[in-house]
Amino acid sequence: MEKENLAKQIVEWRRGFHQYPEQGFLEMRTASIVASILDELGFDLQLGKDVMSAEDCMGKPDKQVTEEHYEWALQHGAEKKYIDHFSEGYTGIVATLDTNRKGPTIAYRFDMDALPINESDAADHFPNQEGFKSSNPYNMHACGHDAHMSIGLGLATLIAKNKDSLFGKIKLIFQPAEEGTRGAKSMVGADVVNDVDYFIASHIGTGVPHNHFVAANNGFLATSKLDISFSGIASHAGGNPEKGRNALLAAASATLNMHAIARHSDGTTRINVGELHAGTGRNIIADQAKLKIETRGETSSINAYVKEQVESIVEGAAKMYQIDYDLEVVGEGISCHCSEDLASVLHECAQGSPTIEKSYLEQNSTAGSEDATYFMEAVQNSGGLATYCIFGTDLAAGHHNERFDINEETLLPAVEILYHSIVKLCGKN
Amino acid sequence: MEKENLAKQIVEWRRGFHQYPEQGFLEMRTASIVASILDELGFDLQLGKDVMSAEDCMGKPDKQVTEEHYEWALQHGAEKKYIDHFSEGYTGIVATLDTNRKGPTIAYRFDMDALPINESDAADHFPNQEGFKSSNPYNMHACGHDAHMSIGLGLATLIAKNKDSLFGKIKLIFQPAEEGTRGAKSMVGADVVNDVDYFIASHIGTGVPHNHFVAANNGFLATSKLDISFSGIASHAGGNPEKGRNALLAAASATLNMHAIARHSDGTTRINVGELHAGTGRNIIADQAKLKIETRGETSSINAYVKEQVESIVEGAAKMYQIDYDLEVVGEGISCHCSEDLASVLHECAQGSPTIEKSYLEQNSTAGSEDATYFMEAVQNSGGLATYCIFGTDLAAGHHNERFDINEETLLPAVEILYHSIVKLCGKN
Amino acid sequence: MEKENLAKQIVEWRRGFHQYPEQGFLEMRTASIVASILDELGFDLQLGKDVMSAEDCMGKPDKQVTEEHYEWALQHGAEKKYIDHFSEGYTGIVATLDTNRKGPTIAYRFDMDALPINESDAADHFPNQEGFKSSNPYNMHACGHDAHMSIGLGLATLIAKNKDSLFGKIKLIFQPAEEGTRGAKSMVGADVVNDVDYFIASHIGTGVPHNHFVAANNGFLATSKLDISFSGIASHAGGNPEKGRNALLAAASATLNMHAIARHSDGTTRINVGELHAGTGRNIIADQAKLKIETRGETSSINAYVKEQVESIVEGAAKMYQIDYDLEVVGEGISCHCSEDLASVLHECAQGSPTIEKSYLEQNSTAGSEDATYFMEAVQNSGGLATYCIFGTDLAAGHHNERFDINEETLLPAVEILYHSIVKLCGKN
Amino acid sequence: MEKENLAKQIVEWRRGFHQYPEQGFLEMRTASIVASILDELGFDLQLGKDVMSAEDCMGKPDKQVTEEHYEWALQHGAEKKYIDHFSEGYTGIVATLDTNRKGPTIAYRFDMDALPINESDAADHFPNQEGFKSSNPYNMHACGHDAHMSIGLGLATLIAKNKDSLFGKIKLIFQPAEEGTRGAKSMVGADVVNDVDYFIASHIGTGVPHNHFVAANNGFLATSKLDISFSGIASHAGGNPEKGRNALLAAASATLNMHAIARHSDGTTRINVGELHAGTGRNIIADQAKLKIETRGETSSINAYVKEQVESIVEGAAKMYQIDYDLEVVGEGISCHCSEDLASVLHECAQGSPTIEKSYLEQNSTAGSEDATYFMEAVQNSGGLATYCIFGTDLAAGHHNERFDINEETLLPAVEILYHSIVKLCGKN
Repeated sequence: MEKENLAKQIVEWRRGFHQYPEQGFLEMRTASIVASILDELGFDLQLGKDVMSAEDCMGKPDKQVTEEHYEWALQHGAEKKYIDHFSEGYTGIVATLDTNRKGPTIAYRFDMDALPINESDAADHFPNQEGFKSSNPYNMHACGHDAHMSIGLGLATLIAKNKDSLFGKIKLIFQPAEEGTRGAKSMVGADVVNDVDYFIASHIGTGVPHNHFVAANNGFLATSKLDISFSGIASHAGGNPEKGRNALLAAASATLNMHAIARHSDGTTRINVGELHAGTGRNIIADQAKLKIETRGETSSINAYVKEQVESIVEGAAKMYQIDYDLEVVGEGISCHCSEDLASVLHECAQGSPTIEKSYLEQNSTAGSEDATYFMEAVQNSGGLATYCIFGTDLAAGHHNERFDINEETLLPAVEILYHSIVKLCGKN
Repeated sequence: MEKENLAKQIVEWRRGFHQYPEQGFLEMRTASIVASILDELGFDLQLGKDVMSAEDCMGKPDKQVTEEHYEWALQHGAEKKYIDHFSEGYTGIVATLDTNRKGPTIAYRFDMDALPINESDAADHFPNQEGFKSSNPYNMHACGHDAHMSIGLGLATLIAKNKDSLFGKIKLIFQPAEEGTRGAKSMVGADVVNDVDYFIASHIGTGVPHNHFVAANNGFLATSKLDISFSGIASHAGGNPEKGRNALLAAASATLNMHAIARHSDGTTRINVGELHAGTGRNIIADQAKLKIETRGETSSINAYVKEQVESIVEGAAKMYQIDYDLEVVGEGISCHCSEDLASVLHECAQGSPTIEKSYLEQNSTAGSEDATYFMEAVQNSGGLATYCIFGTDLAAGHHNERFDINEETLLPAVEILYHSIVKLCGKN
Repeated sequence: MEKENLAKQIVEWRRGFHQYPEQGFLEMRTASIVASILDELGFDLQLGKDVMSAEDCMGKPDKQVTEEHYEWALQHGAEKKYIDHFSEGYTGIVATLDTNRKGPTIAYRFDMDALPINESDAADHFPNQEGFKSSNPYNMHACGHDAHMSIGLGLATLIAKNKDSLFGKIKLIFQPAEEGTRGAKSMVGADVVNDVDYFIASHIGTGVPHNHFVAANNGFLATSKLDISFSGIASHAGGNPEKGRNALLAAASATLNMHAIARHSDGTTRINVGELHAGTGRNIIADQAKLKIETRGETSSINAYVKEQVESIVEGAAKMYQIDYDLEVVGEGISCHCSEDLASVLHECAQGSPTIEKSYLEQNSTAGSEDATYFMEAVQNSGGLATYCIFGTDLAAGHHNERFDINEETLLPAVEILYHSIVKLCGKN
Repeated sequence: MEKENLAKQIVEWRRGFHQYPEQGFLEMRTASIVASILDELGFDLQLGKDVMSAEDCMGKPDKQVTEEHYEWALQHGAEKKYIDHFSEGYTGIVATLDTNRKGPTIAYRFDMDALPINESDAADHFPNQEGFKSSNPYNMHACGHDAHMSIGLGLATLIAKNKDSLFGKIKLIFQPAEEGTRGAKSMVGADVVNDVDYFIASHIGTGVPHNHFVAANNGFLATSKLDISFSGIASHAGGNPEKGRNALLAAASATLNMHAIARHSDGTTRINVGELHAGTGRNIIADQAKLKIETRGETSSINAYVKEQVESIVEGAAKMYQIDYDLEVVGEGISCHCSEDLASVLHECAQGSPTIEKSYLEQNSTAGSEDATYFMEAVQNSGGLATYCIFGTDLAAGHHNERFDINEETLLPAVEILYHSIVKLCGKN
């Protein structure tokens, strides 16, 4: 009965978050509600700038966007008691339950941000059928972070309920801005995992079938997200072409040469100029060009190699056309390798689950990137163990698709597997 | 006294047009008012599709934009009696006064369209001081076509008044979409100057000082305005780069190679990719890229050479990346040389004007382009004479600037010079 | 004693071949000597065009080069009885010993060609010390094919001696033009391995230490070697730039875009424009450009993907500049995976060798390419087994270096391991 | 009779020079013979380094080439008495006849170098018919400098003969390395025209018909000849692509961007990458790339604009690929405008010639370049007059063609016109 209540509650949370999606560093309403629930469950809370290093935030929206969104959040059900901690766009939360009994410190990471996607209004799209479609146009939880948060709160519920039987310290980390790999680094920079012995991040879906489980997802590509702008001099293309300094040509040249960066013999690389916008009129030599690019590498050092070539190419292109440029890192993720010993614990938990049909100790896919890797690296570097696990689910459409949806029956077993990992790791000392 | 009234009327017309600027092929309100005045003055009117060849229109807005603007025009003072002739965006007017006395046919061209510029709200901007600033945001008569139309209507007034002393036939051509060199060709295509012996186009300003006059402005560069789009296949840049067909790279490569088109030994060439917009996300291989470009040449055949290279390069770039492309001509102007005999007539008229301080028979500037050249070529090809004259004026700021303004005292002398040319050419037979 | 004689003989052969290096499709002297020895040992010989498909030869020298080299071979010790089989540059040999006893057919591949490298004249270079340095300037056995042939002839000696105790049929394949992956395909095209049950190719060195052995070398990258030429129209760059059709610009553009070919998510790719030569004078628009390029892929299909992009890009670049192009495949290799069952046999033979210190069942290196893969694929496709093994040796300098040299003590054990594989595979039926 | 002898002599000289063509800064045999003749005629000689500034020589062959050519010259009829003045490749001559009578100083420039062209061996090629074809393979007087020198020596003959009737001072300047616009600047740098009042350069042919004459050829384009090399790091393209630093890609990128240099509104520009040679092997990332380029501009300042863009682009391309570069100016010419007063004198002389059918005061062609412009500018800057005249002739084929040839009947009238200009300018004081 209690289990049924929890299952119902988790789904309710998920749908609530789904209906009010907020993008990275703007999860003010979302974080205020998460904080409220965790507070009520008895967790100690650290909020906002206390758990985020401002200089490590990447790709944070500007002040105006942040302030406008604050107004939106206020008008759309934010918890007033907590929202002011988040009003400047530092929306991270660390909720700690210290058993005050000797034992390890274990941390779980959940991400909170949504995507700039306009949710489908198709009649057969489940959120429409059930009435919890995004009410924030061009914002959508199309990656499952709504589910992640509800799993995190379900886990918090079980922890709170059973706290007298646990040892050590449990930290629940609710991270902003995972999309674009922008938020994790700032929480690591605020030392939130310095004391952590075991770190577990998790994701739903990603192609793993419903009721399947992966205990260690290795193979995230390191990545850098870069915004580049070239700034030249406009001129009338008919009247004075020689007086212009052509930012569009610099951008076109940089683009071609970036895509021509040499492959690396140590492993996979990727480079993409995904967007190029330049110029203001047909008969004007363009003085502005903006590029959105990303690099990836099988390891952090391979990605660093690609990024260094990008930097040289951009500087060279600006030099060619005698113009200025700016290169801003707006997101970054590193590669990481899960700790097998910790993955084994989760693997066992999953194998013990009545709903999980198949559990895999590890999986090596190579295309995606994640900034949970920053937490993982930090924990491993200080002697702890870290892993990244995946709860399979049915997907109505792929991640980042306007018709993305999950099977909500995945949620409760996910909570239970994570809770069992606590029991295994902190249940006795 | 009468002259004072005319002067006042001209200024009033000009300010009225200035306040309701409409862009090319959307001059519905404007044309309806022009038609109404000409009708009242006793001219025979041919309107809309009767004087425009649909297939020769270039860069015409799509149906939705046209329909929406029609609603706007209706709500902003369009003359209901005439507007339906223009509702589909064919906004040309030919007003004819046939004296029914043997004599030559003489035509004058006036252009009507405004620019996509947001007029300055500076307190010292004259239209603000006098309260006739554009009421249509991001639309502005910043090139002087409002003045051109008022000169045309002033000329019509004098013609009507003096029609009994004139010979031959007089045609006043009000052309849409001169900006981007888009509209003239369609009127030539509708044969409106087939019967014309003398053709005179005019422009205000262009750097010529107030009370100076140029009877023959040679040296317009032939030009083509081209919109190019590349259409590829999107793909996740990390997950499946090989499945994409990269429109952004095709556009970048086309851009570089177009700027590298070889110079021509017969004369000046120009090429500019003024805008490039491609891609929808950093981590997506771009499936769409759009370029706005223009070519120019000292002669039509030199411009044709540049345009041909562009066509080959665009086709080649699409082939390189296995993608589709579309190349649309959205504007075109040719080169032309004024007929000296006709220019001499205007030169004499100007020299006879009490306000003109200096008249030049000819001037050869080479950077600009004009599609009145289509009329000129057509008239010259059928044995007539054609010229393009300039009425100098004080400019508050350059053409196409948000603070552009003219000296309204230029208007009446312009009307008088043009009227005297009629007297010289058709006053007696 | 007999073994000592064989060891001495092998070294003598190796030095003889080393002294008269001949490049691919020109191994006339070499092949004539190989044929002579095999004939004397009692093998049935198929020579030249009988074992090579003319249309499958890639990158074959032209007629004049071939004829001139024929004269050179005649003057430098070629065996007159055999050389005319090779005079047109079809220099392959298949030597068969049929025991006429029921049993499998087993084939061994040895390659014969040298490299366009000028051998070092350093005093401490072993071939100089021993007086067998290349006597053919700018030609050198710098990859070890001289050793391969001597191993092949040593193997032939043991086979001939022990033929009465063997079963089945043994084929020794001496292949031309392995460098540039040009010759194997033509022998496969002549069906020389159609009846083969077991196929074994081998190489010396490649970084494997002396007295180490690798039974299965997987991971050859599939590759294509392409010669591209662009053919435009020359013109004086000052006087008539517009009359040129610029092959140099087409080549530069193709080069950049080829290097920008998108990575493949299924595995490693490579692309290199290694040489670009264009133009005949500073003031002439270049009408000729030649590129030497290679593509590679972790599998044949990945390499095919890269090659297809190259083809599109080259065609597109030619289209851009309105010029002609030619794309010639001058070498090609595929990927392959060794048959583990056959590799196990060799692994056992090596483990049984008194000189081999360490044997590896398999190794996966990914940078190199080989055209023995064509034989392997053909044998495997018809149900046979194939492997590619490596005999480690000390290298004085890396492969393709002017000071390359091997440890000749590697040779006899190599012969013995291969011979033992025959005993294992054909020794009893 | 005497005139016939002179005509015969001039032709003999021309054919002699034609048979032994020498390229720029290597005209050792040629200069030694010119010096010998002028010495005999009584001129004062200044030779080699005395009339050339070493640091102003551009594109001079290296020491080895120079020394080897010295040997060639010695063996092919050089005048031993003079050749050592020229042995280091400083091959200029200034021959002065000072009448010691008060009067102006007048200078004539003749160029001496040949081209790297292999003269035609067609039977109907006149030099073959008459047996004076180039005996120096891949060297040819295909621009008419052989004729220029014979005209200069003919003029010297007349001056010497008539010296008692002349006033002032006459300087005959024999310049090396006009091809590639490399030699004149060094003679100007040695102050050889500092004292000159009238300077006359001349050329034969250039499209002007036989027996036509142009007194002032304006419109030479200013030009820069640049050799660019990029120096990167080689690496195996399959094994370690990331370790290379690709000079070929830098060169390709620089090439495209140089051709895309914006046109100049003040006048004609030209840019050409005429040669690009890069790389040493298909499977090696190219560490070397060499480009031969030229820029031109209607004026020296327009050419300077183009050259500056080239410099930025080359620096930027090197930066892009993290490699080194070198940019060497190997030739340079400036624009110039002939002094009309001096041209008028020549125009009159030509009009007085019995053979000249048509004389033009001036002609403005714009494609070619000349470094006589350096002399002209220097003379004009110090208050003198300068012009560049053309003697029309029949051409068997265009300049720089392997079948180039002139009509030798052009030579004597050319001598006479130039001599008459002396008479006009220095005949009386």
